[in-house]
Amino acid sequence: MNARFTVLTGGVGGAKLVDGLYRILPHNSLTAIVNTGDDFRHFGLPISPDIDTLLYTLAGKSNQALGWGREGETWNFMAALKSLGGEDWFNLGDGDLALHVMRGMALTAGEPLSGIIARFAEAWDLQLTVLPMTDDAVATWVETDEGLLPFQQYFVKRQCAPKVQAVRFEGAEAAVAAPGVIAAIMESDAVFVAPSNPWLSVDPLLAIPSIREALESTNAPVIAVSPLIEGKAVKGPTAKLMNELGLEVTNHTIAAHYGELLDGLVVHSKDEAPQSLAIARTDTLMKSAEDRERVARAVLALAKECRK
Amino acid sequence: MNARFTVLTGGVGGAKLVDGLYRILPHNSLTAIVNTGDDFRHFGLPISPDIDTLLYTLAGKSNQALGWGREGETWNFMAALKSLGGEDWFNLGDGDLALHVMRGMALTAGEPLSGIIARFAEAWDLQLTVLPMTDDAVATWVETDEGLLPFQQYFVKRQCAPKVQAVRFEGAEAAVAAPGVIAAIMESDAVFVAPSNPWLSVDPLLAIPSIREALESTNAPVIAVSPLIEGKAVKGPTAKLMNELGLEVTNHTIAAHYGELLDGLVVHSKDEAPQSLAIARTDTLMKSAEDRERVARAVLALAKECRK
Repeated sequence: MNARFTVLTGGVGGAKLVDGLYRILPHNSLTAIVNTGDDFRHFGLPISPDIDTLLYTLAGKSNQALGWGREGETWNFMAALKSLGGEDWFNLGDGDLALHVMRGMALTAGEPLSGIIARFAEAWDLQLTVLPMTDDAVATWVETDEGLLPFQQYFVKRQCAPKVQAVRFEGAEAAVAAPGVIAAIMESDAVFVAPSNPWLSVDPLLAIPSIREALESTNAPVIAVSPLIEGKAVKGPTAKLMNELGLEVTNHTIAAHYGELLDGLVVHSKDEAPQSLAIARTDTLMKSAEDRERVARAVLALAKECRK
Repeated sequence: MNARFTVLTGGVGGAKLVDGLYRILPHNSLTAIVNTGDDFRHFGLPISPDIDTLLYTLAGKSNQALGWGREGETWNFMAALKSLGGEDWFNLGDGDLALHVMRGMALTAGEPLSGIIARFAEAWDLQLTVLPMTDDAVATWVETDEGLLPFQQYFVKRQCAPKVQAVRFEGAEAAVAAPGVIAAIMESDAVFVAPSNPWLSVDPLLAIPSIREALESTNAPVIAVSPLIEGKAVKGPTAKLMNELGLEVTNHTIAAHYGELLDGLVVHSKDEAPQSLAIARTDTLMKSAEDRERVARAVLALAKECRK
């Protein structure tokens, strides 16, 4: 039987690591457990940004130029919406709408999100398991100097400008991990934490008690990829947010954040790293498919080392 | 004070007459009361085909080539939906989706359809009143040789192929006319019945008791435009349906169908007409804007004659 691997992931950066692993591992040996704390309703439609980014990335449909959404996207819906007085701070592409409309219809019919995402992945012939972290509602809220903001208001509407004081995950304490999530963590040969924002994109998963407990008790090594490159984040507000929280923007902080959960950390070639856990170094900037595969090989190698 | 006019209307043909009247009458002297028996949910979104056709037509956004939907439409949503295994028998254009998504959001928030349509008309700067016949759910069902079909299954999915035995309007008996509908009929200087399919598109309005009673008791002359031209329908299944119901495809049948409600009938130049009511003749084929205005002038003139 093939080795089995699980990745905990958030948005764009995480999707790249999952894509790298998916490219080099045998089919159906990978499970991605995806943050749904960013999910929200917009125009009445249920949007799952991190899941959709992952599906688009793996299916080769992601928009390389934008860094989000679909390749070859058109925007007639938004233009028509605007002409009717609709809000336009969150862009929904014409093709992208299909995921949201289909998801909305299925949720209304009572199907759990995990079942819907499994159908989407199957329709696009993806040979891995994509799981939302939970079928329950968990909502990320950001406490800022401008007040408490729903995640998308902070991230998209306000472009991460407000200063972050704390992050909350409403509903996480009571949330049940989606079917398959706990088994994937417990039965994998290694669990990876993608280079997504630890505070915004990975913490929602860790805030679900059963997921944290599984990570604490699994025999599999837990290996993270640091989102930092030379003291900066590749994309998104990680470094800015760390500063605002009064944290040093270093891999020591990343390792300390995950604490006892972590057995190993993959860091960028030139960056310093803590000595308290196993470390691997590679160029962690993932632009091309080769980059993604290189980082994937680094996490797999470090996992193998940690299993010895 | 300007004279006021009201039109009862269904889909494409009806929208052309309303457009003709709108072009030649002073602003804000026209009320269109629109069939909602064709309304249905598709992919969870509330679709109002006849209302939307009218809005697109009046706003100059209608697709002349297709005969339905929006000008300059794109179809990325449908393509993406199909890739996810979604049904594709009813096409929703990318721009068109904006109306359905905005309507769905507002209905969910508890706003009545009439309020939503008024906002849409205002957003597009339309200087007339567009009213759904009712804010209640009324659904047209077609009894056919293939069984009982919801309207859109008969009309779009089966392309009117099944033979019609009867037409039913579920919910009509209990439906309340939308706010403004009864006042428009009672207080107009004339009421027009557009050249829409009498059995499928106008009968839903007449099946609402308060609308029928208002038409029976208003002092305004009620003038219909026949949907027949030389014994045929311009578009759609009117003639086929009349045959299937065992009716002669003539203006006598049209006049008899509306019966006592009607004071006058505008028929095509060359067609025979009953002598039991006031008749006007013109070329009723509406291709250009000039055609629409010509037919509008004919109904206005016949109304004036009937008021003498």
